Amino acid sequence: MELIDQVAALQAWADEARAGGLRIGLVPTMGALHAGHRALIDEARRRADRVVVSIFVNPAQFDEHADLAAYPRSLEADLAMCREAGVACVFAPAELYARDHETWVELEQIARPLCGASRPGHFRGVATVVTKLLLAAKPHLAFFGEKDFQQLALIRRLVRDLGFGVEIVGVPTVREPDGLALSSRNVHLAGEARRQATALVRALAAAEAAVRAGERRPEALVRVAREELGKAPLARIDYVELRDPQSLRSVEAPLRDPTLLALAVFFPRASADGEEVRLIDNRVLPPPPREEAT
Amino acid sequence: MELIDQVAALQAWADEARAGGLRIGLVPTMGALHAGHRALIDEARRRADRVVVSIFVNPAQFDEHADLAAYPRSLEADLAMCREAGVACVFAPAELYARDHETWVELEQIARPLCGASRPGHFRGVATVVTKLLLAAKPHLAFFGEKDFQQLALIRRLVRDLGFGVEIVGVPTVREPDGLALSSRNVHLAGEARRQATALVRALAAAEAAVRAGERRPEALVRVAREELGKAPLARIDYVELRDPQSLRSVEAPLRDPTLLALAVFFPRASADGEEVRLIDNRVLPPPPREEAT
Repeated sequence: MELIDQVAALQAWADEARAGGLRIGLVPTMGALHAGHRALIDEARRRADRVVVSIFVNPAQFDEHADLAAYPRSLEADLAMCREAGVACVFAPAELYARDHETWVELEQIARPLCGASRPGHFRGVATVVTKLLLAAKPHLAFFGEKDFQQLALIRRLVRDLGFGVEIVGVPTVREPDGLALSSRNVHLAGEARRQATALVRALAAAEAAVRAGERRPEALVRVAREELGKAPLARIDYVELRDPQSLRSVEAPLRDPTLLALAVFFPRASADGEEVRLIDNRVLPPPPREEAT
Repeated sequence: MELIDQVAALQAWADEARAGGLRIGLVPTMGALHAGHRALIDEARRRADRVVVSIFVNPAQFDEHADLAAYPRSLEADLAMCREAGVACVFAPAELYARDHETWVELEQIARPLCGASRPGHFRGVATVVTKLLLAAKPHLAFFGEKDFQQLALIRRLVRDLGFGVEIVGVPTVREPDGLALSSRNVHLAGEARRQATALVRALAAAEAAVRAGERRPEALVRVAREELGKAPLARIDYVELRDPQSLRSVEAPLRDPTLLALAVFFPRASADGEEVRLIDNRVLPPPPREEAT
């Protein structure tokens, strides 16, 4: 496995692979790799000839310094996992931005709601670093988790709009046995907060059950999800929203099409320093069953 | 010579050239090719194995609809010039933006002064289309005229910041015998306006003469240039500014280093419809001679 920390060296590596007719798959990560990342890598191994995993905690996408400072780092374990998973190359740059960096990639509509509203500048940082990583690794395919649903939708749009000629592959969320979506930030959960964190997946399931039972009013589905989250007293809701799964625009009543239900919820951090950990999860709800002709 | 109008087809063409070990040179243009473009193509022919000329009047970089509508178009003549100049491939897409395009590349400091201040959104359009063209043509080198000095500086910064791994080559401005910088917009000049348009190059020369004579006060050099422009009664000044040639930041007195003098001046359009044509020109002034020890 190659370990590269310079953009030019990665581009040379990619040029050589491409000249040899090999298809490159990129898995961009911020390290602290878990089974969710492993699912991305495994999918990339199935679909590409050479897998590159990038490990870079991108300061440009953190809107809060405390969150950046607390973000878990585990490079040695990450490298071991990559090696074991058959990764061809790990790109782990110490820095990706010049001191006087001043070029940003920004998206309009799709970056605005949900996490874009809660975390100013977050998606500008995501779009810029993904652009830089795609230019550095020159992949044929790139793999992103569906847990970060808005990020995935935004990257699909970015790649289409700028014409990268890269196929974006979304990979289903990996979950703990109790349903909690895997996230590097889960290390900050313990005890009662960890137990109550399953409220997110229960809220998604409750809304889906309501749709399947015929509920087609958006505000009623949001209420169902909020009620389920309300059963976790440690949960502090950031947002509970229904959106169009492609455009992320708001939806109109009555629901007719598959609809994204997206949640962001804060829980107290294990260290009990007053900080919180922010969890997100989502599900594309099926269309409500057709109304019977009466 | 290949004529391509789809991004994916150009990327396939570029992949094949790259697989064959050939170096690609890109000359981005908005068509209406003149001897200035020819100088870009000739330089690209010297430095690259395969030259791609893109021809696309980029609506995103026009801040005024009238300017876009009046922009000269001459595809047949452009293709003839490219063929004669040994261009391998012309990329002339009918459209480069999806109807719901929403991804923009923006630069901060370097896009702000000069033409960035006069033409809101112009450099966002330039940065976005250049990003798209670099992704489409996958060049090793790309060629831009020094007449659009701020554009060249901005593209150098963009390519560095996003890590394109493309060498940006600046090519000196080509001029008419009387010194007027070539521009596709010069077709809109006639008669007295055309004669007076040499005021730009005379203003640059006057400022350079003043520097060489020991003038080191920025405001005095701007005054010299403005006085020269004032001798052309049809000229309406947009800006006359001294700037650092790399960062485009403003300069401090007394001048010690090479300094950009940049001009933008309106003249009445030949059609006499009340519209104007906006001309730009620039020169990097030498550092003032060292003061003698007294």
